[in-house]
Amino acid sequence: MTLLHDDRLFPADAATRAVARRIYNEVKDLPLICPHGHTDPRWYAENSAFPDPARLFVVPDHYIFRMLYSQGIRLEDLGIPTVDGSPVEEDPRKIWRLFAANYHLFRGTPTRMWMDHAFATLFGIKERLSAANADAIYDSIAGQLATDAFRPRALFEQFNIEVIATTESPLDDLAHHAAIRDSGWKGRVVTAYRPDPVVDPDFDGFRDNVRRFGEITDTDVSTFAGYREAHRKRRQFFKSFGATSTDHGHPTARTADLSPVEVEALYARVMAQGQVTPEDAELFRAQMLTEMAALSLEDGLVMQIHPGSQRNHNPGLFARFGRDKGADIPSATNYVRDLKPLLDRFGNERDLTVILFTLDETAYSRELAPLAGHYPCLRLGPAWWFYDSPEGMRRYRELVTETAGFYNTVGFNDDTRAFPSIPARHDVARRVDCAYLAELVVTHRLDEDEAAEVAHDLAYRLAKEAYKL
Amino acid sequence: MTLLHDDRLFPADAATRAVARRIYNEVKDLPLICPHGHTDPRWYAENSAFPDPARLFVVPDHYIFRMLYSQGIRLEDLGIPTVDGSPVEEDPRKIWRLFAANYHLFRGTPTRMWMDHAFATLFGIKERLSAANADAIYDSIAGQLATDAFRPRALFEQFNIEVIATTESPLDDLAHHAAIRDSGWKGRVVTAYRPDPVVDPDFDGFRDNVRRFGEITDTDVSTFAGYREAHRKRRQFFKSFGATSTDHGHPTARTADLSPVEVEALYARVMAQGQVTPEDAELFRAQMLTEMAALSLEDGLVMQIHPGSQRNHNPGLFARFGRDKGADIPSATNYVRDLKPLLDRFGNERDLTVILFTLDETAYSRELAPLAGHYPCLRLGPAWWFYDSPEGMRRYRELVTETAGFYNTVGFNDDTRAFPSIPARHDVARRVDCAYLAELVVTHRLDEDEAAEVAHDLAYRLAKEAYKL
Amino acid sequence: MTLLHDDRLFPADAATRAVARRIYNEVKDLPLICPHGHTDPRWYAENSAFPDPARLFVVPDHYIFRMLYSQGIRLEDLGIPTVDGSPVEEDPRKIWRLFAANYHLFRGTPTRMWMDHAFATLFGIKERLSAANADAIYDSIAGQLATDAFRPRALFEQFNIEVIATTESPLDDLAHHAAIRDSGWKGRVVTAYRPDPVVDPDFDGFRDNVRRFGEITDTDVSTFAGYREAHRKRRQFFKSFGATSTDHGHPTARTADLSPVEVEALYARVMAQGQVTPEDAELFRAQMLTEMAALSLEDGLVMQIHPGSQRNHNPGLFARFGRDKGADIPSATNYVRDLKPLLDRFGNERDLTVILFTLDETAYSRELAPLAGHYPCLRLGPAWWFYDSPEGMRRYRELVTETAGFYNTVGFNDDTRAFPSIPARHDVARRVDCAYLAELVVTHRLDEDEAAEVAHDLAYRLAKEAYKL
Repeated sequence: MTLLHDDRLFPADAATRAVARRIYNEVKDLPLICPHGHTDPRWYAENSAFPDPARLFVVPDHYIFRMLYSQGIRLEDLGIPTVDGSPVEEDPRKIWRLFAANYHLFRGTPTRMWMDHAFATLFGIKERLSAANADAIYDSIAGQLATDAFRPRALFEQFNIEVIATTESPLDDLAHHAAIRDSGWKGRVVTAYRPDPVVDPDFDGFRDNVRRFGEITDTDVSTFAGYREAHRKRRQFFKSFGATSTDHGHPTARTADLSPVEVEALYARVMAQGQVTPEDAELFRAQMLTEMAALSLEDGLVMQIHPGSQRNHNPGLFARFGRDKGADIPSATNYVRDLKPLLDRFGNERDLTVILFTLDETAYSRELAPLAGHYPCLRLGPAWWFYDSPEGMRRYRELVTETAGFYNTVGFNDDTRAFPSIPARHDVARRVDCAYLAELVVTHRLDEDEAAEVAHDLAYRLAKEAYKL
Repeated sequence: MTLLHDDRLFPADAATRAVARRIYNEVKDLPLICPHGHTDPRWYAENSAFPDPARLFVVPDHYIFRMLYSQGIRLEDLGIPTVDGSPVEEDPRKIWRLFAANYHLFRGTPTRMWMDHAFATLFGIKERLSAANADAIYDSIAGQLATDAFRPRALFEQFNIEVIATTESPLDDLAHHAAIRDSGWKGRVVTAYRPDPVVDPDFDGFRDNVRRFGEITDTDVSTFAGYREAHRKRRQFFKSFGATSTDHGHPTARTADLSPVEVEALYARVMAQGQVTPEDAELFRAQMLTEMAALSLEDGLVMQIHPGSQRNHNPGLFARFGRDKGADIPSATNYVRDLKPLLDRFGNERDLTVILFTLDETAYSRELAPLAGHYPCLRLGPAWWFYDSPEGMRRYRELVTETAGFYNTVGFNDDTRAFPSIPARHDVARRVDCAYLAELVVTHRLDEDEAAEVAHDLAYRLAKEAYKL
Repeated sequence: MTLLHDDRLFPADAATRAVARRIYNEVKDLPLICPHGHTDPRWYAENSAFPDPARLFVVPDHYIFRMLYSQGIRLEDLGIPTVDGSPVEEDPRKIWRLFAANYHLFRGTPTRMWMDHAFATLFGIKERLSAANADAIYDSIAGQLATDAFRPRALFEQFNIEVIATTESPLDDLAHHAAIRDSGWKGRVVTAYRPDPVVDPDFDGFRDNVRRFGEITDTDVSTFAGYREAHRKRRQFFKSFGATSTDHGHPTARTADLSPVEVEALYARVMAQGQVTPEDAELFRAQMLTEMAALSLEDGLVMQIHPGSQRNHNPGLFARFGRDKGADIPSATNYVRDLKPLLDRFGNERDLTVILFTLDETAYSRELAPLAGHYPCLRLGPAWWFYDSPEGMRRYRELVTETAGFYNTVGFNDDTRAFPSIPARHDVARRVDCAYLAELVVTHRLDEDEAAEVAHDLAYRLAKEAYKL
């Protein structure tokens, strides 16, 4: 028995599988370009050992605990910390056993593939995780984690990561990035500018965040002009730590292009005492996307828009456990209408790159591919979040390629905070893309030499170029 | 020539087909769990012979006459009764000939598969129905229908039905269920509580229905508190006839959670003289979903929500032929927004089960799988109505599994009033699921022993457990 | 090396491919029925040689230049004429080289298939277009274009076109159609009535158009009654040039059914001085769809509705280059709600044919198939525009067939202004349909003799009958 079959995710048909194999063999060992993700820069800065299997794999992974929670398992029993500090399970072995006993819940999910890949390739596990072997596998992983070969920098090198971007708030001092830079370590870790805490009036502590933002940047943020200047300065600071991109996680894709007078009035309203209206909050976020595009035209940062997640859909869970606990739910997103103000102003710019993501797959063929297949500034990010999965990636290619081609897409990014899953995620993407290309080859829609070139572009070149890495 | 090939619906690829066959062979003879449907309990109570082939297969099946009607065939010529009693075709043989002459219209549809399955397995027909053999097949079926082996209870046993649920209004006296119970027959037929006639202010005769509801339950329904109490009592009565579930067929998935004062005021408005506003009607239905969830937490009935059908889209047809004549059309449904009030109150309950269905396939991956993959109270019903079909089921699995897994789904239900199609429908579901699982196996996403276990769960265990049968 | 493989677009599985081949061989040489498209009737009237490869293939094809534009290539460099006449590239060879050097951008798109098909079958090209062979291929095509065998009528005959419809405004004098008729040439070219310029208040010059419409038809259009009468007359004129259909390209599918008094008042408002409100413009378009249906019931013209394109989404591009430059973007379309007024009035008419198209694929299974599978007047047009592609057509069949069957669809139309691509487009449709049918056969959902009959219907008969050609 083996956890990983060499032909996994390749088409069943023998002729197609043979083509997929050939193409994949040319790209499987390419270095990993990780232009967007949420790993913790502290890991690379401090290079401490990961604590234990539960805290490495289970506790930080919202894919895992959302599935367990959906089947009636309490987050307390998985060691998820509570907001008020009330006690939760502390014994990593117990948490691990609970995970192992419910491993069947992940059948057919990408989590299962990522886990098996990490278990097999990193830790040499040969058996499927279950209640029966939970302790043995725990011990094996725990033992290896304690060795130097499993510290973050060693794994980074073993993973063959050419460059990885983390994601920080403008309020972050980038101290970990400074520590990495000063350490002499050769691993390339860059930051990315994610200004939601100072751009979204609905963000916790928004006004205090903006005031701190002014202090940090030594800028008077009492006017919008000053606030905008603070962004310009802070983006430069982020660029000095390698940032090549910004990232924007708004509930919708709405953009706006108000006059300077209107913007100042809007800024005054969202910064004034009292409750911001939902309309003003949405309009301010919308305007800020267009402002960020304007700044990107100046400083060259690539802009990522990740819209359409209704965050914290479960108020009871949010009150007890806080953000990012698996209760973010997608919603329908209208790109054609919502992006128009930004596109009316900057859509034809060839020196601007705006990378669009979606949690609404109906937009792929109806809106995103037609938009990206026309506007020079637009590119499409890979299948995201719930769709970072074999079927999700296949639908993405099938729905996008015929209208936007391959070259209006930007290759893969893993978007993860689960460090050990990074090689697995890239490998899944490479395999699914090679399977898709092989089908084009055997149905004579593409020659095999072209398919090989496209596979290389999707696995490596496009991400590197689109993100200017 | 044979009407049914042993390998129907299995993947074309030989290796995948072999896996599908192996898995299917383990589940094909499992008893049928039928937790939701619309067969007539009178059949099992009276056990009379079905009248003739036309009245068994054509006249009651809206899948059939909607297709024929769409191609210009008059419903009168199919024997569909008119509201005003004006005459329609009475000769079953003529109706059958019209159906047979147009059998080609069903090419590629599930109706064709269900018919062929029933023709072949129940009646031993070996030829495809056509104008040429219409009379011969009519005679063959008619002759067999007259025998005892084709009476409802005999078919029930031949079909290997372990349990079947019918669906009744709270105004129903469940006399047929009482007759079944008192008959000594061993077949297990249970009811389900479908309160639309007393919950939907747009339902024909709503206020009279509510008044009768009060009488039947011996409860004062002049206040909402009383009306709610009537539901509590009537649900107990339904439970005494085996009900384990309620069912709700609303135009949207909207829920509400009003204060007691607001609810009383709303109830007073919908029960008062004069036209109910569309907003009030919608709000009352919305509130009642949340009330039903509250009652389910008390009495343990599983809650089914079947939203999103715009009933009676064709007013001319409705005036002449009434409800359920193939003129119900799906519409877009927003679960993330509409279910929030109910979920805010009960979403984290582990002792509540709410099973969601959809006629809007865009919700599978964007809304339903993310919701069911998080909230403990939620489960996903199988592909419904127009999507109770091979492609519909395949899309369901492909769009749902990666986010919600298999264990947030509840197996199959046939949802039919077409009794002879029940084995065919379960067989299609088992085959399509086995085909899907076989593809996971040959692409090395799932081990075959796991696939076999999942196949068993989907064919039998999950429905039984989710519906507490 | 060959540009066209005999098995292109057939399933990879050998058994399925064999069935697809057999079915396809029966339909591949059927004459082409082209019931809807945008070729220029001048070509057939004047029968002049096409000027050069760039002006034949690149300059008129919005699929091509939208892709090149999306990757930063200027439309000026592709020879696209500007509105103000400012100079653009005039050298066809330079334009061709730019296209050839970027031919890789079309990998995986239908444009690539159409081009390769035309290159191979019309011009005998054997190599994939590239920067290296751009000049040689240019010279080869240019040389052949100068010969009589490549004039429009000769190509029309070589393409085996049985009948082709062009699309004209009511303001067109149909002089080219008259010239074709008077020429004695046997090729059958008919017109179609596309009244958008006199029906859409947002159309450039709408009121002047209506006034000219009155003059042309010698009708007093100062009242709606007169304006409607002008349509009746002009439709007769179009019928005298072979028209069998009308076509309507509205931003939404909205219909209305106002009283005569309301219609007159609305007409007065849209024709009065000053800006028409967006609501009135939309309502007038909506009402006109219902009026057109009423006229179709009188005169028998088949009605096509092509809704859901947001035209000229890019105002900068529109100002410089005008309409139809690849900046039309689809948007979500609600057929169930929007068509209701028209369907309430005419939905049950068996002597009316309304053919629905969509740019919103979510409507296929949720709205369009359920509607067409019920209403006698409705039929579904083939996969349109961005979905006139292998994956688009496959999704169409998978999403539509199970509910609406094959016989509520109308076969293929090419909808193109790119004359040399016509055989390629029909060939793609025939191959994809045969591939789909072959899958039904090998999964035993359809017998092969039936599949062959359906293939013939889809390739030839249904279009001819639905459009009354």
